[in-house]
Amino acid sequence: MSTRNYAGIVPPVCTPFTEDYEVDVRSLERLIEFLLDAGVHGIFALGSTSETALLSDAQRQTVIEVIVRSVGGAVPVIAGIIDLSTASSLDHARAAQRLGVDGLVLTCPFYVRAGAGEMLEHFRIIKSAVDLPIVAYDIPFAVHTKLPRAVVVELAGEGTIAGIKDSSGDDANFRLLVMETNKLPLFARLTGSELLVDTALLYGADGCVPGLGNVDPAGYVNLYNFVRAGQLDSARAEQERLIQLFSIVTAATNGRMGYTAAALGGFKSALMLRGVIRTNVMGRPLTQYNDEEVARVRCILAGAGLV
Amino acid sequence: MSTRNYAGIVPPVCTPFTEDYEVDVRSLERLIEFLLDAGVHGIFALGSTSETALLSDAQRQTVIEVIVRSVGGAVPVIAGIIDLSTASSLDHARAAQRLGVDGLVLTCPFYVRAGAGEMLEHFRIIKSAVDLPIVAYDIPFAVHTKLPRAVVVELAGEGTIAGIKDSSGDDANFRLLVMETNKLPLFARLTGSELLVDTALLYGADGCVPGLGNVDPAGYVNLYNFVRAGQLDSARAEQERLIQLFSIVTAATNGRMGYTAAALGGFKSALMLRGVIRTNVMGRPLTQYNDEEVARVRCILAGAGLV
Amino acid sequence: MSTRNYAGIVPPVCTPFTEDYEVDVRSLERLIEFLLDAGVHGIFALGSTSETALLSDAQRQTVIEVIVRSVGGAVPVIAGIIDLSTASSLDHARAAQRLGVDGLVLTCPFYVRAGAGEMLEHFRIIKSAVDLPIVAYDIPFAVHTKLPRAVVVELAGEGTIAGIKDSSGDDANFRLLVMETNKLPLFARLTGSELLVDTALLYGADGCVPGLGNVDPAGYVNLYNFVRAGQLDSARAEQERLIQLFSIVTAATNGRMGYTAAALGGFKSALMLRGVIRTNVMGRPLTQYNDEEVARVRCILAGAGLV
Amino acid sequence: MSTRNYAGIVPPVCTPFTEDYEVDVRSLERLIEFLLDAGVHGIFALGSTSETALLSDAQRQTVIEVIVRSVGGAVPVIAGIIDLSTASSLDHARAAQRLGVDGLVLTCPFYVRAGAGEMLEHFRIIKSAVDLPIVAYDIPFAVHTKLPRAVVVELAGEGTIAGIKDSSGDDANFRLLVMETNKLPLFARLTGSELLVDTALLYGADGCVPGLGNVDPAGYVNLYNFVRAGQLDSARAEQERLIQLFSIVTAATNGRMGYTAAALGGFKSALMLRGVIRTNVMGRPLTQYNDEEVARVRCILAGAGLV
Repeated sequence: MSTRNYAGIVPPVCTPFTEDYEVDVRSLERLIEFLLDAGVHGIFALGSTSETALLSDAQRQTVIEVIVRSVGGAVPVIAGIIDLSTASSLDHARAAQRLGVDGLVLTCPFYVRAGAGEMLEHFRIIKSAVDLPIVAYDIPFAVHTKLPRAVVVELAGEGTIAGIKDSSGDDANFRLLVMETNKLPLFARLTGSELLVDTALLYGADGCVPGLGNVDPAGYVNLYNFVRAGQLDSARAEQERLIQLFSIVTAATNGRMGYTAAALGGFKSALMLRGVIRTNVMGRPLTQYNDEEVARVRCILAGAGLV
Repeated sequence: MSTRNYAGIVPPVCTPFTEDYEVDVRSLERLIEFLLDAGVHGIFALGSTSETALLSDAQRQTVIEVIVRSVGGAVPVIAGIIDLSTASSLDHARAAQRLGVDGLVLTCPFYVRAGAGEMLEHFRIIKSAVDLPIVAYDIPFAVHTKLPRAVVVELAGEGTIAGIKDSSGDDANFRLLVMETNKLPLFARLTGSELLVDTALLYGADGCVPGLGNVDPAGYVNLYNFVRAGQLDSARAEQERLIQLFSIVTAATNGRMGYTAAALGGFKSALMLRGVIRTNVMGRPLTQYNDEEVARVRCILAGAGLV
Repeated sequence: MSTRNYAGIVPPVCTPFTEDYEVDVRSLERLIEFLLDAGVHGIFALGSTSETALLSDAQRQTVIEVIVRSVGGAVPVIAGIIDLSTASSLDHARAAQRLGVDGLVLTCPFYVRAGAGEMLEHFRIIKSAVDLPIVAYDIPFAVHTKLPRAVVVELAGEGTIAGIKDSSGDDANFRLLVMETNKLPLFARLTGSELLVDTALLYGADGCVPGLGNVDPAGYVNLYNFVRAGQLDSARAEQERLIQLFSIVTAATNGRMGYTAAALGGFKSALMLRGVIRTNVMGRPLTQYNDEEVARVRCILAGAGLV
Repeated sequence: MSTRNYAGIVPPVCTPFTEDYEVDVRSLERLIEFLLDAGVHGIFALGSTSETALLSDAQRQTVIEVIVRSVGGAVPVIAGIIDLSTASSLDHARAAQRLGVDGLVLTCPFYVRAGAGEMLEHFRIIKSAVDLPIVAYDIPFAVHTKLPRAVVVELAGEGTIAGIKDSSGDDANFRLLVMETNKLPLFARLTGSELLVDTALLYGADGCVPGLGNVDPAGYVNLYNFVRAGQLDSARAEQERLIQLFSIVTAATNGRMGYTAAALGGFKSALMLRGVIRTNVMGRPLTQYNDEEVARVRCILAGAGLV
């Protein structure tokens, strides 16, 4: 395994809810145990898959507390800082630090339109105020700004950031970024392209943050190990099995549901069916999968040998 | 003036900062006085122009407190609720209600991708929990989702929302919305298209929320009054003068500054030059106009007879 | 009426087809007669509404021949030059000139991504080769590049273009363009925003190119005349009637049909129902409205008093 | 090598121009010789890299004639059919067939907005009229519509298309498409992602259509052979050398030049510097690299050991 800051399979943990939209602590504990048992190399709390954007500040803190306690130092815990402003990101970052996380994953500002100089400023302010490694979180699908490669390289070179989590879907650009940061011995390059993990590892990525890794963490760990062992045919077969499994994000058919509920609701329904979490309730105002949609998820799980 | 919930000129108030990025209370009080003296018909606290996305929760509350106190009931005060989730929007909405605002201006969820059914749910949840009129805030430039006209009409018809603030730039769609809500006697249709106010009023809009109204509120009030009095040539001349003035948003030349700082920094620099607020500091991480850029704003103000 | 190059109502003429996808000459002649009888001020052959992009070179020439002959000099005929390259635009422009049109309406290059300097070059090359006035055609919906206002103003100032046809939907920018070209006595500012014609005329536009003007040319001519006569209430009422009529573009329900067929198929179905053209066949590969959809168009026409 | 319809390295051949914008036949012949000498497995005439969109109909035919004659049957020649309409695509397709090409590469319609049913129709009409294998050309960057995977799979399954050329940049979707078409023994899956060729071949792509392959065809052939031989370290090293070389597309600094001229002008300048073609003239209205920009290309070539 890589000696970089973070490496391997680092799932962005789903946030289970009770029927009244509170964090389901017992389910979250079981989910962490499920992930650790599968051998994941790190835990990403409060990622996009965690519905972080739908949590109140108090709920965000509950999630971190439960995860830090459940992980118990077994692997690094990194916490997403997803908020509109430098000011509120600072508040979240300090809270996460107090709660004992090992690192932060920070988006660039959104709602406002920041330029390159302002993105740099954002990361530098947070870094100067919080004594934790920061992974830059590039997720234009959600924040509607692509972190320019030049900004990432500048922040990496000066030591402001300790890694990148690339959920941009622009794998060619990510490969360029990997090449441009090879000379930085600790800088971690994590991809969010969960359908292209084997190939990303081959060209130098250090790890992956797969949302689907909630549902089949053992599959992703196997995939990672196959690549590291040079067993590329096995890696490809495992990746292709996971790609088939990924079709659970298309099991919803409610036309008034948006993309987020369709995708994350599929993951949660699968975790419910696997007996890991208790409900597939989504954070408000998102729509929960109905029985028919859950039945479709069950078929897909069965096809992948998971129920 | 219209008997609808809100009408006339309702500026989204800039948030002045001190050099250390705190709300400059004295400047904010002066700005409110400046706007009321000009005869504005309402005050929109915590809009996009207010850099709301860059304020901490505590700063948002300070802004509302100062504005409610300074306005003193002279005109309605409506407060923007701009946040990622239904949960945190609820928190903000309750805080605003406690602080005595007269209404809320609520965006649809962002960061997540909500479908039409989920948008409806969002507005209904907030409405059921807060005893205040809610204006839907359609601002795809910032939240990256257009509120579908059918969603707005459904929410208006059932009484969930009391008005719309349309900052979409899609004036044809707004006109359709105006036509479709003419039969709702109280529903307020406010445009954010500050360069097309005279024409929007002519086809039935009830008022405008002009960011530029911070800089020249008297101009916008005159424009409104000219239209209401049927003096269309005067209205057009005044609108065209304000369009010329709007070029202050192009005074910045720093290539690493984003659009938000360029536009709002121009407004703040103009207010500083007019002696209303003390600094042109922007919320972090945005960039402040430099001396050369401020000088350019001064020229434009001079051309419009404002310094 | 304006003394500018072009002004008033200049409909982009639909191209009627026979069942085997050839230009239906007899129907096209009737359509021209229908438009002239309504009092339109010009004819725009081969616009986007004309399905120009779907015509072979030979069909484009047939359309121009029929239109020039049918109009017989009664009003100006301007011809759209919509093609990928400067080279092929030149071929089309020369053909149109030979066929006797009075002016050209030229898009910027597409498929390739041209910069501002290259757009200037494109218009200058065509202008230097063809002895006809050129109207710049700004239609980012189709060509995916917005003609920058600075480019239009530069081309207008140097005499390369004689007008602008703005189908961008960005009415605020169009108003700025109108203001910046007021000092050019002949430069024609035509809007394609067919739902905002009354207001565009009020702030200085010279005319409109309404696709819906195929279906109800008399309505648009009335609207134009009301504004020119200062009868703004009548203008607004007529515009609102036309807005209602515009809902024919939503009569199609075939989910595998794209936006173009939905919109233009509505116009063609209406013209068929009004007895002007013989079929509602679309250029290949676009889908024709089916009987149920045509029935929906009939209801809308009836509501507007047109059948 | 694969037994599929097309496989291996199939460069989209640049179109060299004389100073007066005519096809430079002698340079084009030399370029074909250069590519064949390097061992490419096919030739793609009239691709996007060929500036096809900027050629007149006569020039397109000249290009095909020269290429078919120069290749002399050594490898398959496939010709791009890039045009607005089914009608004009048919004209181009028949012309290409007469000139002796081995297959066509056809885009979906553009300028108009076609729905899924209309895209199917487009490909079926061309297929029924022309007796040649058709490769679907997915290039949303240029045509602004992504060919839906379901459309491609339907066309592949029924035999309308013989392959896909995926220039979408969406490699995860392309991998899904590869998996879904594995059972079609002849269907060719070619990627345009020229920076991710090694990995695409590993997950099942049959070949690549690299624009950069004009400049260094031997590099791409080596890369292909390394992967086929299982020499993955060598493949990765070669791909990374080619990625470094790709930076020639950033050598232009003229702010008024668009992306197309910047990218393709870099390729042409490199070919000129390597002595293969005579000028770096671009099709009108695009801008030619200037001396300073050419000097920058020379440095990059030197770094890659190519001058």
